Amino acid sequence: MEDIIGTTAGVLTSVAMVPQLLKVIKEKNVEDISGLMLGVLITGLSLWVWYGFMKGEWPIILSNSFAILVNLILAFCVFKFKHKN
Amino acid sequence: MEDIIGTTAGVLTSVAMVPQLLKVIKEKNVEDISGLMLGVLITGLSLWVWYGFMKGEWPIILSNSFAILVNLILAFCVFKFKHKN
Repeated sequence: MEDIIGTTAGVLTSVAMVPQLLKVIKEKNVEDISGLMLGVLITGLSLWVWYGFMKGEWPIILSNSFAILVNLILAFCVFKFKHKN
Repeated sequence: MEDIIGTTAGVLTSVAMVPQLLKVIKEKNVEDISGLMLGVLITGLSLWVWYGFMKGEWPIILSNSFAILVNLILAFCVFKFKHKN
């Protein structure tokens, strides 16, 4: 039961991130994204994955790994597009 | 040890949300925020809180509750500012 709740929670919070990522990729507009905050966020998400491994909880590991992937792509976009204008 | 990792993770991912919220409140620009996605996100975060209660894990409960609060404020801003222009 916990696994169903956790997996559903992970899928919903993961799905909610995707449109924002697609928008950034499509519009190549990254002026509003703070590189520092992305760094803080990716560090926090990495600790969540570590926490998930310590507790052996797959919903936490998978959803935070997905969030790290999304934010690494965002960080790459910021690096690539930041000075295009 | 798990609690230290989880609490640090929660603090970092929570801190990373605040500048975006302050920016929206300050600039009153919510055109880029999807109400549907906020709904999906808040639903997902609520399930995480439920999951945290089932597992008795305070870092999960507290950090996702904070995220719900941030996103409810965002939802309020979207409702309030969406049609100002």
